[in-house]
Order: sequence, then C-alpha cells, then structure tokens
Amino acid sequence: MRQAKPTKNSYATMTEIVMPNDTNPLGNLMGGKMMHWMDMVAAISAQRHCNRVVVTASVDNVSFKNSIRLGDVVTLTAEVTRAFNSSMEVYIEAWAENIITGTKIKSNEAFYTFVAVDQIGKPIDVPEVTPETPDEKSRYEQALSRRELRLVLAGRMKMEETKELKKMFS
Amino acid sequence: MRQAKPTKNSYATMTEIVMPNDTNPLGNLMGGKMMHWMDMVAAISAQRHCNRVVVTASVDNVSFKNSIRLGDVVTLTAEVTRAFNSSMEVYIEAWAENIITGTKIKSNEAFYTFVAVDQIGKPIDVPEVTPETPDEKSRYEQALSRRELRLVLAGRMKMEETKELKKMFS
Amino acid sequence: MRQAKPTKNSYATMTEIVMPNDTNPLGNLMGGKMMHWMDMVAAISAQRHCNRVVVTASVDNVSFKNSIRLGDVVTLTAEVTRAFNSSMEVYIEAWAENIITGTKIKSNEAFYTFVAVDQIGKPIDVPEVTPETPDEKSRYEQALSRRELRLVLAGRMKMEETKELKKMFS
Amino acid sequence: MRQAKPTKNSYATMTEIVMPNDTNPLGNLMGGKMMHWMDMVAAISAQRHCNRVVVTASVDNVSFKNSIRLGDVVTLTAEVTRAFNSSMEVYIEAWAENIITGTKIKSNEAFYTFVAVDQIGKPIDVPEVTPETPDEKSRYEQALSRRELRLVLAGRMKMEETKELKKMFS
Amino acid sequence: MRQAKPTKNSYATMTEIVMPNDTNPLGNLMGGKMMHWMDMVAAISAQRHCNRVVVTASVDNVSFKNSIRLGDVVTLTAEVTRAFNSSMEVYIEAWAENIITGTKIKSNEAFYTFVAVDQIGKPIDVPEVTPETPDEKSRYEQALSRRELRLVLAGRMKMEETKELKKMFS
Amino acid sequence: MRQAKPTKNSYATMTEIVMPNDTNPLGNLMGGKMMHWMDMVAAISAQRHCNRVVVTASVDNVSFKNSIRLGDVVTLTAEVTRAFNSSMEVYIEAWAENIITGTKIKSNEAFYTFVAVDQIGKPIDVPEVTPETPDEKSRYEQALSRRELRLVLAGRMKMEETKELKKMFS
Repeated sequence: MRQAKPTKNSYATMTEIVMPNDTNPLGNLMGGKMMHWMDMVAAISAQRHCNRVVVTASVDNVSFKNSIRLGDVVTLTAEVTRAFNSSMEVYIEAWAENIITGTKIKSNEAFYTFVAVDQIGKPIDVPEVTPETPDEKSRYEQALSRRELRLVLAGRMKMEETKELKKMFS
Repeated sequence: MRQAKPTKNSYATMTEIVMPNDTNPLGNLMGGKMMHWMDMVAAISAQRHCNRVVVTASVDNVSFKNSIRLGDVVTLTAEVTRAFNSSMEVYIEAWAENIITGTKIKSNEAFYTFVAVDQIGKPIDVPEVTPETPDEKSRYEQALSRRELRLVLAGRMKMEETKELKKMFS
Repeated sequence: MRQAKPTKNSYATMTEIVMPNDTNPLGNLMGGKMMHWMDMVAAISAQRHCNRVVVTASVDNVSFKNSIRLGDVVTLTAEVTRAFNSSMEVYIEAWAENIITGTKIKSNEAFYTFVAVDQIGKPIDVPEVTPETPDEKSRYEQALSRRELRLVLAGRMKMEETKELKKMFS
Repeated sequence: MRQAKPTKNSYATMTEIVMPNDTNPLGNLMGGKMMHWMDMVAAISAQRHCNRVVVTASVDNVSFKNSIRLGDVVTLTAEVTRAFNSSMEVYIEAWAENIITGTKIKSNEAFYTFVAVDQIGKPIDVPEVTPETPDEKSRYEQALSRRELRLVLAGRMKMEETKELKKMFS
Repeated sequence: MRQAKPTKNSYATMTEIVMPNDTNPLGNLMGGKMMHWMDMVAAISAQRHCNRVVVTASVDNVSFKNSIRLGDVVTLTAEVTRAFNSSMEVYIEAWAENIITGTKIKSNEAFYTFVAVDQIGKPIDVPEVTPETPDEKSRYEQALSRRELRLVLAGRMKMEETKELKKMFS
Repeated sequence: MRQAKPTKNSYATMTEIVMPNDTNPLGNLMGGKMMHWMDMVAAISAQRHCNRVVVTASVDNVSFKNSIRLGDVVTLTAEVTRAFNSSMEVYIEAWAENIITGTKIKSNEAFYTFVAVDQIGKPIDVPEVTPETPDEKSRYEQALSRRELRLVLAGRMKMEETKELKKMFS
C-alpha cells in the first residue's frame, strides 16, 4: 500500500446534457445511460487517486427515484472513499438540473468499486485514502460494512462472519 | 394485476460486438457500457411482458469478474422473473465469446427492476409471471428475498421486518 | 475445406431498439441503418462458423416493405446457409415488434456473403455446412443458383453458362 | 408525374473519414457502415430531385472488392437515374482515398431505390428525370432492365414476362 | 436587462475521456471535437446564467498548442464574463490530464458568445453579470474590446469607430 | 517548401443530414457540431494538399447567423488558400438546404489553420499553393493579413509590427 492521499485528490466532476438518443419514448433519460456516465466519472476519480488504469470490479445497488428529462443538465461528482489493497470504493452523486426553472435535485447516489491494474492487466496496490471532511470520514468508516455486504452478496463471505454488517443488521 | 403470462413470453436476446469506443486504454470493455447494454436488453424483456413503456427503478449489486476484449462478441439474455404490482424484476446473463478460439464464458449476472408506466409516466399494474422451468421457478421464489434486500438497502424496510432475508442471513 | 459443421452452430440473434438517431424526419427507421445491423449479425454468424475474422464480400438485393417506427424493437437472426472455399453465404431475417400492441412482423430477408481472412487479410478456407432442418436444407440447395446470379451480376459468368439459374429462369 | 428535371439537379456528394468505430479488428471499414453511408447520400440525392421525404424501397446487389483502411477518406457520389411514378432509382459510387499516397480507387457501385412519401407516409408522384450526359443516358436506358430484375427477384414478375431482361440474358 | 447575477452563478465544469473515435490516426484529440465540447460546456454555463435556451452566436479565434492523447482526461470549465442585451460572452478553459503521470496542463482558452432565445427562437434579454474575483473583473472589463473586435471582423463596425480596440492596438 | 500545387487539388465537399442528436431542444443544429464538421472537411482538404497527417493549429472567429433545422442537409466545402512552411490556411463554406422548399443558404464561412506532421508528430514542410480563379487569388492575397491578425491575437506579434493588418485597419 503506497503513501496515503487525501480524498479531495480524487474529486471528479462531469456534466452531460440529456440528448435525444439518451432517452426512452417518453423523453426520459434511460437508467443504463446514467450508469454508463457514473462509471466514467468514477473511473476518472479512481485514476486520479492511483495514477493507474482502472477496471470496474463491482457496482452496488442503485435506485432511480426521479425521472430526468430531455434537455436537462446532469452533473455527476465522484470521490474515492477508501482503498483496500488494489481496490478503491468510489462514491458518486448525480444531480439533475432543469435549465428553465433552475431547479437542481439529487437524482442518484451510487458506490462503484474499481481495481488498479498494470500494463498487462494484473492488479497492483494503490495508496490509502485520508478523509478530511466529516462526510468523507463517515463514508470512509462505513466503507467496511459495504465491503462486507459485497462479499456476502458475491458468496465469498457468510453473514455470520461479517463484523460491521452484523452490527448494522441487528 | 392483469392475467399471468409465462416467463418465456419475456425472453430477450441481444448481441453486441465490442468496438474501439467501448473499451478502456487496455482494450477491455468498460463496465459502464456493459451496464448500459444490460439495461437495454432488460427493458426489452420487461416491455414484452407488460406491453408498456418501462423505466428503470433499480439495479442490484453487479460484479465484474472477467475482462472482455475488443472484438469479442457479447450475448445478453433477459427474462422477467417476477412481477409486483407495477414493477418487474428482470434477470440478465452476459456471455463473452472469443471469435478465434470459440470459447464462450458467462461474464456477468444481474437483476434490474423496472416499473411500467402509462403515457403520462404514472405507474400501472402489470401481469403476474408464471415460471415453468426449474430455474425460472427458483428465481421466482428467491425474488422475494432480493426484494426485501432492496427495500432494506433503500431504507424503506428494517432488517428485522424482513421475512425471507432474515432466514437467508441467519 | 475443413470439416463440416451443422448450420445451427452459426445461429446468431441481435436485438436493437429504434432510437431517435436511427430515424428519418417521419420517425421511421432508415434503410441504411437496417443494412448496417444486418451486416453485424451476419458477420457474427459467419465468424461463429469459421472462427476467423470475416469481411463482407457482397449483399444480395434487399427490399423494404414495412416501415419500422421509433421505439420499435428489431430482432435480427442469421445463419450460414452454405460455404464455398473461403466464402460463406449468410441468411438474415429482420423482425419488427411494437411494444404496445405486441405485434411482430417480418420486415426483411437478406443474403450477405462473407470471406474468411487470416491475420494479413488473405482469404482462407472455411468448414463446409451441414444443414439439418428442412428450411436449412432448402436454403442450402438454392444457394447454388443465388451464387450463379451473383457471378452473372458481377460480370464474372454469362447467363448461358449458369446451370441452376437457367433452370430457375426458364 | 410532375415536370421533368435534369439528372444533375440531384447530384450529391458525401465525404467520410474512416474512424476506429467504423472498422473491424483488422482495421478495415465494415461493409455495413459503407451501405449505411450509401443510403444517406442516395437519400439526399432523391430528396433533391423530388423535394419530399423519401424512404428506402430496395437495394440492388452490392459487391465489395477492395478493403478500405482506418484513416482513409471515402467519397460517395449519387444521382437519380430514372423515376417511376413515386419511386426513384439512385446510382451511387464510392471512392476510397489514401491520404499519404494520394491514390484514389473506385471501391463500390450501387443502385438504391427510394419512394417519395407525403406527411402521413403515403407514396406520392415525383418528377421525371431528363438525362443529359452519355453516362446519364445510358444509366437511364438500363434502368428498365434493372427494374425488371428487381420485380423478378421480389417474385412480382416472371422471367418470361420481362422485356429488357430477357434480351440481356439471352 | 433583468437583475444582475454574480459570475459564479454560471460556473460549469465538464470532464471527458479521450476515446478512440475522438482521435486522428496519430492518436491525438481532433480540434473539432474539442470545439464541440467547448460549445457544450459554454452553453450549459450561459443557460445557468439566463435560464433560457441559448444558441451559439460566435466563436472567437481559438489556437491549439498542445496535442492531447488517447486516454487523457479533458476538463473544461466555463463562466459567463459579461452580458449585452440578449447575448452573453462565455470564457472557457480546457485542461488535459495524463492519468499515469498525473500532469495537468492548460491546453486551450476560448471565448464563445451565445444568444438567449424564447420558445419561438426570438432573442430575449438576459440578466447582467456581476464579476467578483479579480480575474472575473478583468475579463468583464476586457469584454468590451473583444466585442468590438467581433463587430469589426463581422464587418459591422469600422476600426476607427472602436473605442477599446483602438487603445489596445495603438 | 515542396513544389506548388493548384488550389483545386485540395477541394473537399462533405454533406451531412442534421439528426436529432445534433440539435438543441428547439430542434436547431448546435454550433459546436457545425465546428466539428468544419474541422473534418478542412482536415480532408489540407491532407489532400500535402499528403500528410494534419493537426488543427487554430480557428479564426466564426459567426453563426442562421438557424439550421433538424432534417436539413448541410453541405460543407473546403480549399487550402495558402501555405506557410508547415502550416496551411483552409477556407470553409457551409450551406444549409431545406429539402421541402429546395432553398439553400450560405450559413457560415470560416478559416481553419492546420499543421502537417510526420509519423512522430513533428511539423514538416508542405507544398506552396497556386491560386487560379479570381476568388482563390483574392483569398491567397488576404491570407497574409489574416495570418498577422492570428499572430497578434496569440500575442506573438505586435499590432505596429504588422504590415497588411495595419493597412487594413487604418
């Protein structure tokens, strides 16, 4: 594990205008397009943290509450919450903004996990993360239980073997 | 809830060739592109089941184990596993095929949930699903615990209120 | 000519949703986009048969009878009908499906021919095809007269030199 | 049939650079992409002739002789050769140009047929074509036999009922 | 002219990864793609200022000094520098970042001008801009001479009629 | 400087149909897309002149007077006006054509400058240009003052050092 870097080193922001080919027949942004954008901003964030090519390892449960319309501006922000050996958890927020009304609402939150790889695609250790703000610290702490949940869902850990998750769920 | 339809009514298959713009600098398919394709095949499957426009409501945890290469053929299959009022859970498999060696491996499994909407975007009830094969029946049964997990993760149900999930996790 | 493979070895299915950028100002799928999709599913089919990179050699007459609408789901199927040294004839069907009505009509049939090539682009022999179903056998037999027609149209054979075609046209 | 217009009224030229996403794994332009470009330049040509929205009705046999490389410049030209009630036959040439060597070769010729439609998609009569150059006149004359061949291939005319085609093939 | 808004109200940031289809045969980002991205981020900035649909009115001289490579991350920032009736001048910076070395250099600066329009496309007045930082104030002041230069270049003002520009050029 | 070539050697024409994803919410072509197309046709023109890969060096002020609509046909023409060592100035015209009315108006004029590079990206000398028509000769002569303006705007020449520009502006 290389020397720690502050969370803010990995901040990334991406902005997209919802174009006709991004929408369904009702003129709403398709969920798959949103997940594609999230993957790109999160990959940029993870690459800024580790200065390596990264590959997507997993995506946590994402839910879609609001419909985003043709012509809306979508702003996505990302930051690396915590690193584990060669993997990095990235937190993403997506905001939808209506140009005419000026309203801006948070439409999605998501956690993607990436693995840093070398030139032949082999995993390679990344720097630790040093959270600084209260939100960063909170997401850093909770990264442990999210990681346990991923391992349980992937069948690589049993519920009773988890530490953080058991606390959370009981 | 309208009259039930068999699972096979919703079978959908999509095939894509991995093109240069789908890959990262190492020539591997980007995870976000895969999630976009999954969303499209799953939406087609859900629409076949309910004959309505559908919108993505949530995506369960997805993990990426194998790297898929430029020029590979990706085959995605989808089927509606179970319906709940206006929502449908869709099961998706993605297979990666190397043209020269002829090898074909399952690269991903995922569950996406869609909601059927009417012309003004309001949720509308969909037919029930009648599973027929053993695999379809098994996925139909387990849909209950996956649904509880989604509600817990979305903060809309507490762990101790779950029925199926508690059994699974204890 | 390498060892024969059954037709079904080359089955390929592709599904596309008609998006805004695929349509003309009346909201109908453009013919050129359909021919592009046909080329992709047919190339996948030919590659499955021969496990080689393939290049398009010719496309037989294609006619467009029905208009396909924005939001429709297009399903394309392909199979190799017959092989001749390094070339393969591929049969393609395209079906258009309206999500709301659930109707599905066959919109196009086409025959594309591909040549298998090695890493420097030189043609290379491919396996023979063994048709199994009555439809496959019928398309296998008629491949000879379609091939003669292609040679006549390309100016590489005279009408009176053809065997199958003369029968068909007299 | 509205008043005739000279062929040159429908001249159209399109130029494309072959980009990575247009090529197969050997770096050659895919045939389907070429057919898509041909459809676009031919539609522009037909629309210039009739000042109407047009839809593709059929594509005659196309053969691909030369491989076109990533980075090559493809120039497509189109002209309406002859009109029949609401349909127009369009002749297309595609030329591939290598920037470094400056060589330019004709890679394809094709005939596409379009139908002019009104705002609800109903076929509508178009002006006749007045060919002027020897090449235009020759393509105008031969349009009759190509049309008969299309009708025969579509099963809407029998070989023995054709006039021009019988001459050509005997 | 509606009530003034601070410059920062119009800040916009966009991030893009340079993909294969954005590059020339040497693997460098094409200038036209960069100008397309600049137009999008600048349009978002102008729309945030005026809460209206905007259309591009002009682009000042842009020069390209550094080559940006495939896989680099391009960050574009934009802000409205000054408003004139229905038009807004937007200042754009583009930065190129190499993921492996972590170096980030300013590759371009540009000024785009937009006009706010109503639902039928007619120009409509926009709020004034209140610059706050020294850089914002400096760009606000110099906007006058840039505007004069645009009018001179467009043949709508003579060099001797300019006020600011004459000072600058003598 | 290699042997001169006539201007006409570099003529290039490109035609595009305005598709949904090229337009803003009012259905008008976005300025950034137009500048992207101009860059492509101009690069083709410059490459025809010098038979080398070229990179965009600068774009002169461009103004947008007319709105171009979804479904319109845009024709772009380009020619190299003059060469200076390794750089070439390219003149571009864009015309917008409405299919139904048949009207065709000049929507934009622009000057882009390109530099020819060798395989490692180093600038390399290009042939001189020999203008032939009166328009070509006029643009050839005026290229000097446009070049001086570019140098002044880039801060690489002072107004009082210019020869042509001083005449024009006094």
